[in-house]
Amino acid sequence: MVGIEAILKHVLNNVLDPEPDLDRVFHALADPGRRSMLERLGEGPASVSELGKPLAMSLAAVLQHVQILEGSGLVQSRKLGRTRTCSLNTETLRSAERWISERRTFTERRLDRLGEYLASTADQPDAPDSGQADPAAPRAQA
Amino acid sequence: MVGIEAILKHVLNNVLDPEPDLDRVFHALADPGRRSMLERLGEGPASVSELGKPLAMSLAAVLQHVQILEGSGLVQSRKLGRTRTCSLNTETLRSAERWISERRTFTERRLDRLGEYLASTADQPDAPDSGQADPAAPRAQA
Repeated sequence: MVGIEAILKHVLNNVLDPEPDLDRVFHALADPGRRSMLERLGEGPASVSELGKPLAMSLAAVLQHVQILEGSGLVQSRKLGRTRTCSLNTETLRSAERWISERRTFTERRLDRLGEYLASTADQPDAPDSGQADPAAPRAQA
Repeated sequence: MVGIEAILKHVLNNVLDPEPDLDRVFHALADPGRRSMLERLGEGPASVSELGKPLAMSLAAVLQHVQILEGSGLVQSRKLGRTRTCSLNTETLRSAERWISERRTFTERRLDRLGEYLASTADQPDAPDSGQADPAAPRAQA
């Protein structure tokens, strides 16, 4: 039974839940101690005490950070005997990465189009001043 | 002179400063209002009042969010006449994206190697229990 429960939990966490809460994900990422724990977990699963070892903080503080990481969906953990083992959830990492990457690629594409427009108008003697208009990104008023 | 100062500031912000402060970057990303401003800026530069328009908040609150975004390096702004125009800094976006992507790809590669190892031992009659060991990620004690 435990095996089926664990599998169901994994499916619920990783497949059925499509979008993690980005407020909690980015908040979890905003702390250097929690980022160092995630860097460690990038090398493989680790126990809570292993995660805390390089950090100068109490076990209670480490546990609190792990709880924030789990609450954000960046980390999942399971207890085997007396040891709680944590691992990274790549789906949550991927969602945060995708949000940032979309903003970046939209901007880069727009700048590329603007560059092409400026290059195409550079030879025209009556080219309008490009300081005001951004023809590459027409936008309706909200 | 103002032109040279602006160019120097741009160079200092974007070229000479290699790594943004990820604490401040992820903190800036952890707020839904600030993310909506960044989504708007992904479509092109905008004034502070344009950024605030879809959000139900005072101009003072909008300005505070813009200052946090600028402090993180995600946004840069310059004043033209009486209007301050904000734009995205793709380099800062890229740094945050890279940090997340490294954690994700390390984990995915390790899981791939683990999968290959398990597949290679599946046919062997005396295959050891794979629950404890993770041969794909040997790790020296810190």
